[in-house]
Order: sequence, then C-alpha cells, then structure tokens
Amino acid sequence: MNIKLNCDMGESFGIYTMGFDEQIMPYIDMANLACGFHASDPVTMHRSIKSAVAHGVEIGVHPSYPDLVGFGRRNMACSNEEIVSLILYQLGALEALCQSYGTKVSYLKPHGALYNSMMQDEEIFKSIAKAISKYDVSIKLMILSSSKNIYYETLAKKYGITLLFELFADRAYTDEGFLLARQKKGAVITDTKRVFKQVKRLLTKGNIKSISGKKLKLKADTLCVHGDNQSALELIKALARLRDDSTYKLC
Amino acid sequence: MNIKLNCDMGESFGIYTMGFDEQIMPYIDMANLACGFHASDPVTMHRSIKSAVAHGVEIGVHPSYPDLVGFGRRNMACSNEEIVSLILYQLGALEALCQSYGTKVSYLKPHGALYNSMMQDEEIFKSIAKAISKYDVSIKLMILSSSKNIYYETLAKKYGITLLFELFADRAYTDEGFLLARQKKGAVITDTKRVFKQVKRLLTKGNIKSISGKKLKLKADTLCVHGDNQSALELIKALARLRDDSTYKLC
Amino acid sequence: MNIKLNCDMGESFGIYTMGFDEQIMPYIDMANLACGFHASDPVTMHRSIKSAVAHGVEIGVHPSYPDLVGFGRRNMACSNEEIVSLILYQLGALEALCQSYGTKVSYLKPHGALYNSMMQDEEIFKSIAKAISKYDVSIKLMILSSSKNIYYETLAKKYGITLLFELFADRAYTDEGFLLARQKKGAVITDTKRVFKQVKRLLTKGNIKSISGKKLKLKADTLCVHGDNQSALELIKALARLRDDSTYKLC
Amino acid sequence: MNIKLNCDMGESFGIYTMGFDEQIMPYIDMANLACGFHASDPVTMHRSIKSAVAHGVEIGVHPSYPDLVGFGRRNMACSNEEIVSLILYQLGALEALCQSYGTKVSYLKPHGALYNSMMQDEEIFKSIAKAISKYDVSIKLMILSSSKNIYYETLAKKYGITLLFELFADRAYTDEGFLLARQKKGAVITDTKRVFKQVKRLLTKGNIKSISGKKLKLKADTLCVHGDNQSALELIKALARLRDDSTYKLC
Repeated sequence: MNIKLNCDMGESFGIYTMGFDEQIMPYIDMANLACGFHASDPVTMHRSIKSAVAHGVEIGVHPSYPDLVGFGRRNMACSNEEIVSLILYQLGALEALCQSYGTKVSYLKPHGALYNSMMQDEEIFKSIAKAISKYDVSIKLMILSSSKNIYYETLAKKYGITLLFELFADRAYTDEGFLLARQKKGAVITDTKRVFKQVKRLLTKGNIKSISGKKLKLKADTLCVHGDNQSALELIKALARLRDDSTYKLC
Repeated sequence: MNIKLNCDMGESFGIYTMGFDEQIMPYIDMANLACGFHASDPVTMHRSIKSAVAHGVEIGVHPSYPDLVGFGRRNMACSNEEIVSLILYQLGALEALCQSYGTKVSYLKPHGALYNSMMQDEEIFKSIAKAISKYDVSIKLMILSSSKNIYYETLAKKYGITLLFELFADRAYTDEGFLLARQKKGAVITDTKRVFKQVKRLLTKGNIKSISGKKLKLKADTLCVHGDNQSALELIKALARLRDDSTYKLC
Repeated sequence: MNIKLNCDMGESFGIYTMGFDEQIMPYIDMANLACGFHASDPVTMHRSIKSAVAHGVEIGVHPSYPDLVGFGRRNMACSNEEIVSLILYQLGALEALCQSYGTKVSYLKPHGALYNSMMQDEEIFKSIAKAISKYDVSIKLMILSSSKNIYYETLAKKYGITLLFELFADRAYTDEGFLLARQKKGAVITDTKRVFKQVKRLLTKGNIKSISGKKLKLKADTLCVHGDNQSALELIKALARLRDDSTYKLC
Repeated sequence: MNIKLNCDMGESFGIYTMGFDEQIMPYIDMANLACGFHASDPVTMHRSIKSAVAHGVEIGVHPSYPDLVGFGRRNMACSNEEIVSLILYQLGALEALCQSYGTKVSYLKPHGALYNSMMQDEEIFKSIAKAISKYDVSIKLMILSSSKNIYYETLAKKYGITLLFELFADRAYTDEGFLLARQKKGAVITDTKRVFKQVKRLLTKGNIKSISGKKLKLKADTLCVHGDNQSALELIKALARLRDDSTYKLC
C-alpha cells in the first residue's frame, strides 16, 4: 500500500513563526499551504512555495474562513456564494505565486472550521466542489475518509472532480468508521508508539482498528500529520521512514 | 486615433456600495478591478467580473497596498519582496475568479498610493514588472503617460512586458509633459466642456495642450475616467460617444 | 408614556458612507455607534461622537464580532473569554474617543449576529453582562423586549447591571410576545402607516397588538429605528414628532 | 540614579506567540502593551494586563499604525486626524481592559514606524500629544532621549503633558547625542558585556559615552530592553540586578 503524508504548512504570518516547516518539508509529500485568511501572507506564501518546490513536495491550497485572529478555527455562517468566492480567491492567489515558480496547485484541503463545516453540511461540500469545478477539475479535493466515502465520491462526480481521502494518524475511529469526536476519551492518540502502530497496520494490512478493536477498511490516499512541536517532528520522520519501508520499526 | 476608456470599478466592499458600476460598465472598455486590499472582497469581485463579461469589457487587475481603511491611498513603506508578492497574490485571486467565468485578466494597473509610488520610485516599477513577468508576460502594465514613456518602455522590455500608457481626461499637464501636481492651480479640470475639448483634441489631432498652451504629443493607449458621482457618469457617456464618433459635439 | 428612539449610527468605514447620519441625528435620542469590528474606524467614530454631542444624543457602544466584510451579520463561534474581551476592547475604544469630547458611553447594544446570539444563548448574554460589570455598572445593556424580560432582569441583577428593553417599530410580534421570525410572512412591517400606528398605540395605550391581534404589554424603554434609506428617514421624522406629541397624526 | 526597565510585551496574536512575556515580566518595571494594530488582540491584551498586574508592573499603551502583517514597522502616510483618532482608539481599548483588572494605563509609547515618525516629524509628535491631552494628562508620553529633550519638553508643556525619556541599553549614540542610525557600523551593541557596561556607567555616573568616546549626559527615566530571544532574557535579568544594586558585576 502506498500512502502520502500531508501536513499543514506555511502558517507563519508576518514576523510570527508557526511550525517547523523547514525541518518537516524534506519528509512530507503534500504541503497544505495557507493563503492569508487564517494564516500566512503573500511573502510567506512565496517562501513556502519555494521551499516545497525545492523538496519536490506537492502543493495544496488550504483555504479558510476569513478569521486571522481565530486562526480559522471558529465556525462562521458564510453563504454558499461567499464560500465559492473565497475558495476561488485563495486558490488563485496561491496559484499565481506557484506559477511564478513554474509549479501548480494540485489539490485543495479546506482548513479548520471550514473543513469541519464541509464534512457536516453538504451545501458547503457542494460549494467547495463547485468552486474547483469552475476553476480546474484537475485539482483534487481532500476530505476526511469515513464510511461515507462512496456517497461523497458520487457527489464529487457531479462536479467532475476527484477526491482524495485522508486518515488521521493520531486519531481514533468509531466502529461505524467515523472519527471519534475530539472531546471523547481516547479520541486523540498521544502515545507515539500507538500512532506508529496504527499507521503500520494501515500500510501493511490495509486497514485500521476502531476504538473497540473492530477492523475498518477506510480508503487512505494520504495521512494527515502535524508539525507544531518537536515531538510531532520526530513522529513525522518515523512515519516517513515507515512510508518508504513498511518493515521499519520504531526502537 | 483609437482610444479606450478605463475606469476603476468593483470598489464596493461587503455591504458598502461605491460608484455606479452597473451604469458605467456599458460605456467603458477596460475595468480596473479591486482585489480586496483597498476595496472589494471575493463576492464583489465575482459580481464585477460577471458584469464586465456581460458588457464585453476588458478586465484589468487593480492591486493596492494592504490598506482597506485608507482605501489604498496612504503610502506604505513596503519592501520589493513584499510588492512582488502582493501583486502576484491579488493578480492570482482575480484571475481565478475570471477563470470561473471563462475570461482572463488582460492588464494590470496599480491603485492609488501604489500607482504613485510606481511613477516616483523605479524600484517599485521594477518590482511590479518583475511580478508580471514571473506570471504571464501577456498581461500589460498600465502606467501614466508622460515625457518619460520611452524610458519606461526600455525598462519594461527588460522584463519582457508591454506597457499601456494612460492619459487623464480631467487633468492638466505641464509644458514638460508631466501631470500638473494636484495641489497646483488648474491641476484638475472640473469644467466638463474643457475635459471634453481636451479629449476631442486628442482624438482628432493626436495631441493635447499643456497648461500654458504648448502642444504635447503624449502616447495615449487609454484614457482614465472616474465614475464616483452622477456628473462623472454623464461625462463618461459623452466621452464614450466621442470615442465612437470623433465628430460628436457636446450640446 | 415616554420612549426614546435608538438608531444604528456611525457605520461608515473609511471612504465608504453608510446611512444618513447627519439628517437622522437631530431626531433620535440614542445613537448606537459602531467601533471598527463590523463598521466604522477611529476617524469615523470621532466624527460620529462629535455629531451626537452636537445634537445632545446619548451615545451607546455597538460592539460586534470581528467581521468587517460581513458587517457583523455572520454568526461566529467565539468563546466566552473572546466575547468578554472584544466587548471591553470596543467599549474602551469608543469611551476614550467620547472622553476627548467630554462625554461618556451610556449604554451598550450588541450588533447584528452578536445581538442575535445574546438573545439565543444565555452564555453569551452572561459574557456581555460580565464585561460591562467589570468596567462600569452604570452602563446599561440594551436587549430585545419580550415575554422573557423578567428572566433577563434577574440575570442582569447578578452582574449588578441595568437593562434597557427595546421594541422594534417595524416588526410583528407573536401572541407569546416574541419577535416573529424574519422569514415568516408579515414579520417586517413595510407599510409606514402601520408602523406609525403600532408606535402610536404603544405611546398612548402602553401596549402593542400581536400578529393575530392579541394585546401585548411589553416593556419599551426605547424603540429601534433604521436609517438606511430615504423613506426610513421620513419615518424617523414622523416617529420623532409622535414621541414629542402623542396626538400627532400622519397625513 | 534610579532607572526603570521598559519592554515591548503582549505582542502575541491569536495562536501566535511572540516573546518570553511570562519570564520577563518579573524583571521589568514597565510593560509596553500592544493593542491589536501591529500585534495582540483583545484576549491577548486581557492576559497581558493580568500578568502585569500580578507582577506589579506599570502598564503603558503601545499604539501603532494599522499594519498587522508588517508588525507596525512600515511607515504609513496617516493624516494628523487619523493619528489622533487611532491613538485614542488603542488607548481606550487597553484602558477598558485595564479597568476590568482595577488598574490604569500610566504612559504611552508609540510602536515601531509610528515611534520613528514621531521623532522625525513634529506634526506627528503634536498629534500624539494632542490625543493624550484630550484624554488624560496624567498619562505620560515616552520618547527617545536625545539632545533635543528640552525642545520636546517645551512642546509637551503646551499640551499639558509630561514626557518620559528612554535610552536604549544596546544602541550607540553620536557625539551630538542622537541614536547612531541602525545601518551605521556599531549602531547596535551585540556584546552583552558592553551593553551591561553602558548601563552601569549610566547608573553610577549618570552619563554614557558616545561612539567616539565623548561623555553624554542624556536624561534617562527608563531604559528600553528587548525580550525576543533567550540571550535577551538573560541580559534583562542582569540589568534588573544592576538596577536594584548598582555594584552588581557580570561574571
């Protein structure tokens, strides 16, 4: 099984630094780049693209609700027209900066509250799909892998776009094949060894285990990893080795 | 002589309305569209493009310093890297929205303080030229027509880009072929008949007269018109008729 | 019965003009002034205060979620800590500008989505009350008058603050004494004469009639009026005459 | 000689962290708190005030041009009316949050480009002085100590306000008693021992030495220190000991 690591990158803002982008870039496959709505700014975007290109990392646009101070994590009641427009705006802004480096945006992953809204409200999913379809159908839409994958694929087909399904390396899943809500016990796997084990199982057996131990076959085009602290960085390095060599063991 | 009317458009913001866009669009040739830095927002940009397309008006990007509250009219000490990046950002944002309507950005005209900076500081001119050259050399850069046109054309050639020279219908020019500074007496021509006369002379004789009456041959690819009040709208209509029929007379 | 007219004012932003503030100011009693989060900016606030002082109008702070492009009308998932802080921030900003004119903020009325949130979510009501209580308990909180008035008064008392209840001149009320939801038929009274009649009844008989004709006794310290178009301005003038002379008749 | 250490604090923004505020607060005397224009936000301001109060640190307002992405370091052509208004706005916002902790703003120090503008353009100095005088003349204005101190004191007196003069611990001064321009060789003293020596001389002898060795008697109510990295933090601790005990030696 082949899997790509995606990570939220380029989330610095002005003189504020966020994450360990330079250290992470060599290990990941896909960089989700912020576009100035929850983080980043034109200069930061420029530099992030340069770094991604240097490391041969695929570039994805990571659009958000307009909420810098809330880092795009606060839900906002935007209309469908607003969502279509703000997706195109951010996509184009990043694309132009990519073009100046001779590269292109290859996928779109909504950020924070917009990502959650997309998975909870079909109208928002449709608005995002519509925005992509009006711009360039070769840009893939990354969504959360779950038991509803086929349903979403059918929806996406109506807009002529392709989906990428992502699993979270460090999150537990319900028996029904959904992400266990963050406030539930055990929802976030903090033990690095258990995260590693979950990913290894996925790579070698093609499935993961739910919170109660049930086997789950969830499509996983990519694995979401986080890079906001030093131990997260170590985990990324380990997962990158595992991706390249599924027999790799964590000492 | 053939000349196009360009006008700053799409400068509404959220629920705030600016200008008489819908009434002006049928009469102009080129719409300079704001991109969210001094005015406009993704939804407004969407609607402005739709209207421009409906009236067959060429779309230009109208980038600005990031200064919504000052409407981009306050000079800001931005670095060259910042200018290159913010130009590409705004250009791309508008381009993506254009692409969703099957159209393209055909030229770039900096807004307000950024326009003035470009005409006063060669480094800023170069940064803007560089941004365009890295994106798409078919996008033309609109600058102020003056006695320095050849100088700027030589500069632009180094970046492989083409310039568009604009004259101001309602401004007086010095004997040396520069715009008379706004604070000087007679700098802004408020008498509609005299504006009309200046444009008629340009269209029929290919020159204008300086403030002291000297003949000036300044290249004029386009004429800048304003649409911020009712009488400006009437003037645009008259200039549009004159553009289409150089024998047209103002009653 | 004595009643005051309150109106959202000072909602211009930079060069964008909103409303007919100068024409309305002579007729109203209380001006709800925006503070830069949904509208306005420091200079506009300065000018609005100057105008309110000149006309002897009481000044209220009109704080909002941070959403300029959405004019504060989009709900945002803010934490209680965020709400307390953004209320104090806006209150203080306006207060300092008031102080420079020798006046003070006398009440607080949340704007748009924040107003609606306050009436729907008790936690938000409490956060707002808490912010006021930590600053100056002489500042009154204006809320929507309904059958729950006593309940809210009890809550407010815990924070040591006083409430002002407002009725909407141009809205219909349910038999249960709540605002009829905006999407319901007849919710907004567009006929000027019927608005006038509703207010006249209130002033002379101390009650209004519900949508089905039932008598409703709702406390009304103030009446909310709107000033965003020419006919609204005419209505304000008529209501101001009625306020001063309850025998006044609309011709 | 008695001297106070002042430091730019509270410059985090949303989830972005800036500086080592918690570690620095115990050692300084005056905290210059950002107000949302170049850094900070209502919640961050709230927390910064809480921390300053806990450590008995004086609170100063640190207003800026409106330029979050540029951290207030880019000069902006603001009018005098704009400066008066934005100073009052930020001052009031911080004051309200202070009041909720039972404390007050005791001085004002402009930030970044606004500070530089104030020292270069008398009109801007006057606008800031005017803003303070309209609000509360007990709030002191902190400016750069130089050979022009008496001149500025005379100016300040016209507005009825008091100045605080600050020296920079880590900057060299010209023979004429001005800060050596940052781009000049030796302008910034990076050697901790030399910074310490400069401060010790000031505390014990009441003067500093210019870049060429000339004795300079510059009034120093306060010393500006920086807290943006680990070694800066160590320096602050050393200077704090020196402030409390002028015989203290750096090992």
